[in-house]
Amino acid sequence: MPELRKDPVTGRWVIIATERGARPSDFKSAPQVISRGFCPFCEGNEDKTPPEIAAYREHGGRDTKGWRVRVVPNKFPALQIEGGLDKRGEGIYDVMRGVGAHEVIIETPEHVTTLTSLSAERIEEMLRVYSERLNDLKNDKRFAYGLLFKNVGSIAGASLEHTHSQLIVTPVVPITVNREMQGCRGFFDYRGRCLFCDMLKQEIATGSRVVIDGDQYVAFAPFAGRFPFETWILPKRHRSNFEDVPRSELPELAEVLRDLLVRLESALENPPYNYIIHSAPFASNDLEYYHWHLEVIPRLTKVAGFEWGTGFYINPVPPEKAAEFLRNVEK
Amino acid sequence: MPELRKDPVTGRWVIIATERGARPSDFKSAPQVISRGFCPFCEGNEDKTPPEIAAYREHGGRDTKGWRVRVVPNKFPALQIEGGLDKRGEGIYDVMRGVGAHEVIIETPEHVTTLTSLSAERIEEMLRVYSERLNDLKNDKRFAYGLLFKNVGSIAGASLEHTHSQLIVTPVVPITVNREMQGCRGFFDYRGRCLFCDMLKQEIATGSRVVIDGDQYVAFAPFAGRFPFETWILPKRHRSNFEDVPRSELPELAEVLRDLLVRLESALENPPYNYIIHSAPFASNDLEYYHWHLEVIPRLTKVAGFEWGTGFYINPVPPEKAAEFLRNVEK
Repeated sequence: MPELRKDPVTGRWVIIATERGARPSDFKSAPQVISRGFCPFCEGNEDKTPPEIAAYREHGGRDTKGWRVRVVPNKFPALQIEGGLDKRGEGIYDVMRGVGAHEVIIETPEHVTTLTSLSAERIEEMLRVYSERLNDLKNDKRFAYGLLFKNVGSIAGASLEHTHSQLIVTPVVPITVNREMQGCRGFFDYRGRCLFCDMLKQEIATGSRVVIDGDQYVAFAPFAGRFPFETWILPKRHRSNFEDVPRSELPELAEVLRDLLVRLESALENPPYNYIIHSAPFASNDLEYYHWHLEVIPRLTKVAGFEWGTGFYINPVPPEKAAEFLRNVEK
Repeated sequence: MPELRKDPVTGRWVIIATERGARPSDFKSAPQVISRGFCPFCEGNEDKTPPEIAAYREHGGRDTKGWRVRVVPNKFPALQIEGGLDKRGEGIYDVMRGVGAHEVIIETPEHVTTLTSLSAERIEEMLRVYSERLNDLKNDKRFAYGLLFKNVGSIAGASLEHTHSQLIVTPVVPITVNREMQGCRGFFDYRGRCLFCDMLKQEIATGSRVVIDGDQYVAFAPFAGRFPFETWILPKRHRSNFEDVPRSELPELAEVLRDLLVRLESALENPPYNYIIHSAPFASNDLEYYHWHLEVIPRLTKVAGFEWGTGFYINPVPPEKAAEFLRNVEK
């Protein structure tokens, strides 16, 4: 069972994943590369993953061929689903058992390496699965937060190339989420408005950082983006929780996400990237001060001593230039 | 002139480095590799760096041969030394000019790639330069914080292999520093003691995470370390500011730092790593609640979507195991 330990200085939690099979000597070698051989995510290899949690299917039964999207537990989970938290102290330190969920959303049965290989309709289905998994897991009262994210490319942390996303559910609200919520709460307390709603208005009015301006969603390069070509997708309608997005608002989200990723892949020649859905914690609903959104971060620059020591980031591409470049991509 | 922009959600500052010569197309290619050819840091190439700020010399004058340690401005500075801050708003956003300092400490005139190639006496001299540069720059009232750090290896953000450190001075206290200070302040307000002093006591008493226990310094793997083999060096004597360490306490620091790095290099076969000196801001002195220290983070794991989205880290090597491994290194 992994252990959750809290850094007493910053309050940040760390997962000490003792059961992932790592020995000190495993770290002598170079970073893992993505296996080009056998793929456990391909159709026909359903028995090479843990038993499926959910699937959208054309035909067939559980753990057989015939699916379009498939959700399975991560074979090497960061957190484990069984048991209680057993919160305790060790002198000045705090620790609990590493209880949570770690699921993989396999986005297609074919061996493709980019989400953009799928149609907007298929991506919409993936987003529906995201939402359903969050709604299912938030019923478990041990759990506080669910993070949906995607790692593409070895540099961005992917270990398999077959296109997939992940969901990690944690028993505490992560520090990054807490800080984002606090920032928005402070703005709301002072001004009585949602910070992200204000940001949307200003971005649309300014225009220079906008990449895609849809009916329901806007994609733009954030004013203080940490990474070159960092781009956020914000829903125009205020809503704090991603899992509450009605189905009628998923088709355009799928289109905008696909369009943005096509532009990034074209402009940067298939860069490594992460995307992350920022949503309110499970215990919150319909918050006036928080606004869910999706952040895409291409991984083109290194995080070095300065960034680790300060939280400052050095972004060598002004967001206005990145947005202009992405707007002008010929697809 | 680079621009400092503040993220309105988190309060994090970003340096938009428009003058580093990056165009969007520069990011299509793979990460930069360390040049194996001409080295501007080697003795005899003094005219290939900006004019030196300081040096310890055997002989010779400014910008000539004969030095042992040499400090020069970074040729591609993240922040620039000239001018005022010109703080202003842009709608909901905050921005100021990218004023600060960015210096390189070239640790030796020979082309060696590891700090551990130098004797403890030479490393002590480097530490003295660190301290002198901080003391010099804190006289400039525009500046709020100075970060000393080292990037080793391409993965850790180094772009030149000749062993060197960097000093970046910022006009605002970085968010990471602020949070660390706040955490320590909260502990002190509640308990009336320094958190790091308590940590030291517990670590020495427990022993399982200690790597080196010296007279004046302890090196240990932190209880909630984010990275495999992360190790901190703490001075046993409480002091908030690194630049106030008396010269009599630098020799052992140099020895412990060298010993620790030798152990890491041996155990992990010359891993990429960063080290960072955590010290109180320029405006603070002799704080009861903060304790300067040095953090070494080997860069063996990837930072992926989960880490960016939550601030959680997954550490596959328990700190106790890492410390045991490092203690037992045969040198």
